[in-house]
Amino acid sequence: MAGEQAAPGPRALVLCSGGVDSTTLLARAVRDFGADNVVALSVSYGQRHARELDAARAVAAHYGVEQRFLDLAAIFADSDCSLLAHSDEPVPEASYAEQLDGAEGVVSTYVPFRNGLFLSSAASMALSLGCSVVLYGAHHDDWAGSAYPDCSPAFVEAMARAIAEGTGGELRLEAPFVNENKAAIVAEGLALGVPYELTWSCYEGGEHPCGACATCLDRAAAFAANGVPDPALAPRD
Amino acid sequence: MAGEQAAPGPRALVLCSGGVDSTTLLARAVRDFGADNVVALSVSYGQRHARELDAARAVAAHYGVEQRFLDLAAIFADSDCSLLAHSDEPVPEASYAEQLDGAEGVVSTYVPFRNGLFLSSAASMALSLGCSVVLYGAHHDDWAGSAYPDCSPAFVEAMARAIAEGTGGELRLEAPFVNENKAAIVAEGLALGVPYELTWSCYEGGEHPCGACATCLDRAAAFAANGVPDPALAPRD
Repeated sequence: MAGEQAAPGPRALVLCSGGVDSTTLLARAVRDFGADNVVALSVSYGQRHARELDAARAVAAHYGVEQRFLDLAAIFADSDCSLLAHSDEPVPEASYAEQLDGAEGVVSTYVPFRNGLFLSSAASMALSLGCSVVLYGAHHDDWAGSAYPDCSPAFVEAMARAIAEGTGGELRLEAPFVNENKAAIVAEGLALGVPYELTWSCYEGGEHPCGACATCLDRAAAFAANGVPDPALAPRD
Repeated sequence: MAGEQAAPGPRALVLCSGGVDSTTLLARAVRDFGADNVVALSVSYGQRHARELDAARAVAAHYGVEQRFLDLAAIFADSDCSLLAHSDEPVPEASYAEQLDGAEGVVSTYVPFRNGLFLSSAASMALSLGCSVVLYGAHHDDWAGSAYPDCSPAFVEAMARAIAEGTGGELRLEAPFVNENKAAIVAEGLALGVPYELTWSCYEGGEHPCGACATCLDRAAAFAANGVPDPALAPRD
């Protein structure tokens, strides 16, 4: 009707770590919902460095989406996870498979129920911000071999049900990459023109990625599988 | 073996609001696990008053259990829930049933996915503190009629599964009251000698409970059903 305002479309909240997977998910969300209807949520949890939050900031700015930050570090004050700044444990320099060496269990970089906490925080904020969906970038390589149980399809399915039930059906959780590997995600991101040069994956801080930790190895392999160099590793001036 | 230290028993983390249900749950946990193996977690979420946290503090001191506090108010900064200090909405002076008046939906005192967030925070902290179980005092009267979807058996079951899956089976969630009404909980608590005079349920702050909000009405009915006066309403000097 003339003079009537366009009805606002559905809104989505995307958990954004500044890494490859969630940045690709953000690109999909902007395509599907429009930048005005997307909120990026980035969480501090006491990680060793703020480099990944800087990356999340750069990515959100690139896409022109609203961004929120949360600091949940107090919740992990007693954890001995090696990813945390207060931990004395070194971050292992090996792939997840090498760390587990065929054994069951979780790697030392598992932050206790971190992703359950992130998703619940995202759900609370999403409802407050008028979003009807929370998007989560968990993918196959995160949970295969039990490296991160809070990325598994069984976990995602249970959290999706908890969020649907606990919000009276007002909100849903989607994790479209949960059965895809990182190489497939990068392929999709390259087609979407994702600015991977802005992203950060390395568990260590510093100027450049270390190239040796599990997430650096994963990332390098995903770009190699697509036949392109990782732009985050490209030579800088 | 002589000289060997006694193996520590299993440990439990109890979400403690300072109200009737979680205080009764704490009493059960102390009975079942021993006070040294119980951690009470109390959460600020931007509620209108700190009176219930004072009550939680008094209850934990009574039982001599370790207590942790968390402030998650930032997560609800954008919520218009009437329980929050920044909200302009008044807290309704009516029972849950009167507020809903037969309609589907949630009451204005529903805090967005609050209990999912509390349980996830509790799970993260419980793992860090060596607990194998999180105890949650949701009960029948909270969810009947959809008043609080994040207290329902379906929600509890989904969260229990999410916590079991997301922690690789290291942690479980139990909500032993989820199918009991408040009168039954009070009956159990009276038998356990729970110091209900230390608890606080009222949505309003102040020196004494208002006696008019939904939770005051619920509480009064639960004590009346047990034929005893509510000690929190007893005349004071």
